[in-house]
Amino acid sequence: MKKVVILGGGTGNFTALRGLRKHPLELSSIVSMADDGGSTGILRDELGVLPPGDVRQCLVALSNSSRIMRSLMNYRFEAGGLDGHSFGNLLLSALEKVTGSFERAVEEVGRILHIKGKVIPVTTHHVRLKMLLHDRKLLDGEKEIYLSDQIDQGYSSLYLEPDAAANPNALAEIEHADVLVLGPGGLFTSIIPNLLVKGVSEAIAKSHAKKVFVLNLMNRKGQTTGYKLSDYLKVLHQYIGDNIDYTLVNNQMPPENLIEKYAKEGDLVEVDVKGDHVILAPLLGELTQVNKNDLIERSLIRHDSDKLAEEIVKIADHL
Amino acid sequence: MKKVVILGGGTGNFTALRGLRKHPLELSSIVSMADDGGSTGILRDELGVLPPGDVRQCLVALSNSSRIMRSLMNYRFEAGGLDGHSFGNLLLSALEKVTGSFERAVEEVGRILHIKGKVIPVTTHHVRLKMLLHDRKLLDGEKEIYLSDQIDQGYSSLYLEPDAAANPNALAEIEHADVLVLGPGGLFTSIIPNLLVKGVSEAIAKSHAKKVFVLNLMNRKGQTTGYKLSDYLKVLHQYIGDNIDYTLVNNQMPPENLIEKYAKEGDLVEVDVKGDHVILAPLLGELTQVNKNDLIERSLIRHDSDKLAEEIVKIADHL
Repeated sequence: MKKVVILGGGTGNFTALRGLRKHPLELSSIVSMADDGGSTGILRDELGVLPPGDVRQCLVALSNSSRIMRSLMNYRFEAGGLDGHSFGNLLLSALEKVTGSFERAVEEVGRILHIKGKVIPVTTHHVRLKMLLHDRKLLDGEKEIYLSDQIDQGYSSLYLEPDAAANPNALAEIEHADVLVLGPGGLFTSIIPNLLVKGVSEAIAKSHAKKVFVLNLMNRKGQTTGYKLSDYLKVLHQYIGDNIDYTLVNNQMPPENLIEKYAKEGDLVEVDVKGDHVILAPLLGELTQVNKNDLIERSLIRHDSDKLAEEIVKIADHL
Repeated sequence: MKKVVILGGGTGNFTALRGLRKHPLELSSIVSMADDGGSTGILRDELGVLPPGDVRQCLVALSNSSRIMRSLMNYRFEAGGLDGHSFGNLLLSALEKVTGSFERAVEEVGRILHIKGKVIPVTTHHVRLKMLLHDRKLLDGEKEIYLSDQIDQGYSSLYLEPDAAANPNALAEIEHADVLVLGPGGLFTSIIPNLLVKGVSEAIAKSHAKKVFVLNLMNRKGQTTGYKLSDYLKVLHQYIGDNIDYTLVNNQMPPENLIEKYAKEGDLVEVDVKGDHVILAPLLGELTQVNKNDLIERSLIRHDSDKLAEEIVKIADHL
């Protein structure tokens, strides 16, 4: 069985994993530990735990348990001191406290949810993502970076504090992968936070895996405004060198009215690179009603889990 | 297999069930829905859920899952908006929200914890326990009653508001029981809140089960101060008539220094009734260190799970 390893954090991972789990693959999801917003941020601050939110989404994506269990994991309390907390986050944090280990907690929840594959924190150290803008303004934490609309005016550095070592289990997954997938997901807030962890970029460069970059459907306004595919590849090049074997690109146009509606959030990514390594395919998801207790929360213009998975499987099958 | 049904709420149930689960019995625990203190009280107020705390204790008692899972259920958060909440309470409340049914939530957690037997809420209506004292003071809620030290001066009524109907599943358990156990546990706060639910007392009186009352080791000061066994039986008589077949009584003396230490909390119960229906046996638990994240929280003078279970099993075996 081919081993497919996804690197990222957040909703992008969820989408890829939810499709991939239906295929006969050995699956692993390596998850960024830089999230500090929302329920996750509160738990980090108040309990001193590692960030559970992105891990939770990956666990749910890989879960073979009942619809009820998956809804439970994503259920958000709506009143009092619990307001806004996702139940799955509380589960991971309580288990971290009980077992004394976040990795152990992730394994236990994986067992409860009967997951296919593995979910692995990229580091087990407490890190904070920071970005220094050209105007010397410091964005302190992933949430501040995610919310900033000034990044497209230039930044001088993006780094983790402290400079943390990778989880050896994450490095082993990268080493043994047949296909390594970066994205889809926020470039600065989901993909690069993994590459900043000591040892990860080197492991990716050394790995014999085919490296696949999944291009986002939209640029995020104020962050990657006006970015073309070549700009994305240029940024990744700084971290892992000339090591992207394939880029998966959606060639399906979203409905005009939705592009207009999303104009204030971002623009479509222009594909200015051509060649065998750029794989064009219709990857757009069906438009669905989403609400905050649903499994996918953020965007209506999004990848389709199954179509995305099929393209990744094609690459794995060709090896 | 003999069917043993325990009626109560709280730590007393936990003790009995933890011992009984080791025996080849069909086990059910019917749980009071009157708790409104602590984490449970906050969840009732803020989320409008049914009280999870006592149900959680019974589920843990019957669990065949790992030590980690049982510790997780009783884990209490220690900071921020989550401070004081037990994880198991949050699990039951979130599942109640997700499934729309507290009974369904209890079943799901039972599955997660691989419990032996069943845990059944005595009613699925929202009730509040109230007590009117002789001086016309109203104790509003189980917590107020539990904390009062004026009950021994007399009360004129103890009732649930609203006057709720029993859960049909609880009535069926009572009907089909071979042995029905009341206690150990607070007379006013754990045992009677079950008997006050419409249909329960009648079902007990009609049931062919042998009815066993487990006498508490200590009277609670200001509540049952100076009560003898005959006083306990007199109170129970008001609810279920002359239907107690056996009373299980500890005949082992706690260490003198512990009695002194507990003098401000209560006195030992005097056994002023004799006969075949009063079964005397050494039922005292080992003295153990207890801390607030431990499985048993309240008292150092307590029943021994195994000894208590053995006496109940003897009654079941004689049928």
